Amino acid sequence: MGPGPVNAHPRVLRAMSADLLGQFDPEMTGYMNQVMELYRPVFGTENRWTMLVDGTARAAIEASLISLVTPGDTVLVVDFGRFGLLLQEILQRIGAKIEVVSVPWGEVVPLDAVAAAIERTGPKVVATVHGDTSTTMAQPLEGLGDLCRAAGALSYVDATATLGGMEIAADRWGVDIVTGGLQKCLGGPSGSAPITISDRAAEHIFARRHTEAGIRMAGLDDGSGPRIPSNYFDLAMIMDYWSEKRLNHHTEATSMLYAARECARVALGEGLDARFARHAAAGRAMTVGLRAMGLTVFGDDAHRMTNVTGVHIPDGVDGEAVRSMMREEFEIEIGTAFGPLQGRVWRIGAMGYNAMKHKVLITLGALEACLRREGFSLPAGEAVEAAMTAWEA
Amino acid sequence: MGPGPVNAHPRVLRAMSADLLGQFDPEMTGYMNQVMELYRPVFGTENRWTMLVDGTARAAIEASLISLVTPGDTVLVVDFGRFGLLLQEILQRIGAKIEVVSVPWGEVVPLDAVAAAIERTGPKVVATVHGDTSTTMAQPLEGLGDLCRAAGALSYVDATATLGGMEIAADRWGVDIVTGGLQKCLGGPSGSAPITISDRAAEHIFARRHTEAGIRMAGLDDGSGPRIPSNYFDLAMIMDYWSEKRLNHHTEATSMLYAARECARVALGEGLDARFARHAAAGRAMTVGLRAMGLTVFGDDAHRMTNVTGVHIPDGVDGEAVRSMMREEFEIEIGTAFGPLQGRVWRIGAMGYNAMKHKVLITLGALEACLRREGFSLPAGEAVEAAMTAWEA
Repeated sequence: MGPGPVNAHPRVLRAMSADLLGQFDPEMTGYMNQVMELYRPVFGTENRWTMLVDGTARAAIEASLISLVTPGDTVLVVDFGRFGLLLQEILQRIGAKIEVVSVPWGEVVPLDAVAAAIERTGPKVVATVHGDTSTTMAQPLEGLGDLCRAAGALSYVDATATLGGMEIAADRWGVDIVTGGLQKCLGGPSGSAPITISDRAAEHIFARRHTEAGIRMAGLDDGSGPRIPSNYFDLAMIMDYWSEKRLNHHTEATSMLYAARECARVALGEGLDARFARHAAAGRAMTVGLRAMGLTVFGDDAHRMTNVTGVHIPDGVDGEAVRSMMREEFEIEIGTAFGPLQGRVWRIGAMGYNAMKHKVLITLGALEACLRREGFSLPAGEAVEAAMTAWEA
Repeated sequence: MGPGPVNAHPRVLRAMSADLLGQFDPEMTGYMNQVMELYRPVFGTENRWTMLVDGTARAAIEASLISLVTPGDTVLVVDFGRFGLLLQEILQRIGAKIEVVSVPWGEVVPLDAVAAAIERTGPKVVATVHGDTSTTMAQPLEGLGDLCRAAGALSYVDATATLGGMEIAADRWGVDIVTGGLQKCLGGPSGSAPITISDRAAEHIFARRHTEAGIRMAGLDDGSGPRIPSNYFDLAMIMDYWSEKRLNHHTEATSMLYAARECARVALGEGLDARFARHAAAGRAMTVGLRAMGLTVFGDDAHRMTNVTGVHIPDGVDGEAVRSMMREEFEIEIGTAFGPLQGRVWRIGAMGYNAMKHKVLITLGALEACLRREGFSLPAGEAVEAAMTAWEA
């Protein structure tokens, strides 16, 4: 019950036991095409270029930024937590000129502040996180695409922590690239990162296409733009690999592709709306339960992620001792925190296969027991009862 | 029975069905430490820094080169096939000054030619492939490290296609970084790439350490060298993540780590010498069998990889029709070829879990049947019989 990675869905674990296939075997390329089809609704998009990057969620972030941004380009980062810092860190290495619009941890950036920052900085690319687990806040993105397009900017969204748990509306938001991971709300393992790319962004990236010597083929021209300074993260080559051209690039990570496919099948089988409602119920029950225990929930209620809840460690309680007791006595992991929140809050997840009523209730009951052991005085039994009621609300 | 990916070992497939763990859970970090221990003998090394890169084999190649090479550095590439071209392609994107010592496909580069090229070009780094599946040749590497160290150069070896199937002797060869993949001789899926790094190379890389803002910690100084232009592939950060510091970087790909761990456990359980002998028997039986069928094996017998065999498509036979018939009638995949060999040779693998007597014999029998169907005249039954004898030789 941490902020991810979390327990995987048993169907996803079983899917990885299937034997491997050659990477150009028609059965394998058929699965690749299914993955493209399955992830479009998950991302809320009709984008043709919807596929996987073979690496962890961070790999897809870097692939997106290195393929969109040319050294010297101005990039505006919407920064409201640790993963906004990560976007800047990656962009520094790419050689971007970085501008930032930021807020204190626990808040989100108002759209008019983003608009003003775009006006002020004239970025080529605007990059933001959707849900930042470091602060448990979800940045509203409705209208971001219009702002960016009006300013001639491309847009990138890191939805690692929300994909499959909160609505991702790539097309309605009008954003150009959105990436995710399996290990949060999709209930799978880290190591494969779904991505969707708008036609507009794809055109921009194909203008930087430089096909490897030795696998060039007729009808596939190199672009006039500057070469992307990574082979592995060159989205032009990755798109060519996932296209009907099947131009050889990396060897697709077969077992992880099976996992990614099964994650999406489980999510669509449940129904995305039902899934978002389940995560919302879990987040609501967790928040209500923690408050009924007398604890203070961290951050702004209006923009809380549904799938991870920050809660202040009460005065006089040793946060790490409680985490250890939770792990050792109850086999339940809860998360510590980063940066300004380190030692001040725990982060308790309820995402993917863990966003279930019984898991929320058991976690609250266990936390209550651990806090009592640590000498924290609380109204016994109320957290679980309040959470049961709140789940149905 | 292609040049990889191939069928995985059933124990590796089952290992991926284990549920996930938090990335800093003591059970998880214990598995990470086991992986470091298990891969040292696989790489023939005592290197402390022996771990995994979270991506396909190509990811580890790029991580090695981008962490070793600074833009403008001279790099000498030992080029004897398609994967030598890939090294150059990756180095171009890094901004290296590339020098090449090459031979026609089907040959290897003599050590004295490497020595002369080092003398001529004064490289900072020498990069080579060990076994290049595109040509089925294995480059001899005995003595390479001494040459490089005498010239003050660091060395990199891509052992993707041989790790776990032919001897890798990182320490005896004296080379600095060696990387591999699971999907060839280790009998696992693509998506996790074992790597070993000498202390000398680690020191060079740590001099380029630039820790992410927000996770800096006491006692961990940034280096004075130029920043590595990738976050995901920054081996300094990856080493810090695998060290007892456990400095957060990517979220370790848990299921792939389970797979990598099981691949090494299976390999060490069999015994590396027994494993190399099994691959050698498979390669010998395949070669003898193909010749007994009247076919011409591609390339130089003295430097053949044991785990993949190139064979000329006979005149008048439609190579792709035979490959399709093998796949459709017998459920056996054999490989096509790249570049100058495209349409001229098939590449038949016998690696990892597929380097087994019955699989070699069945493949030869099936190929014989397909060739007969295609009208190729051959001495019926001799291939399988010759291969049975050769296996025991």
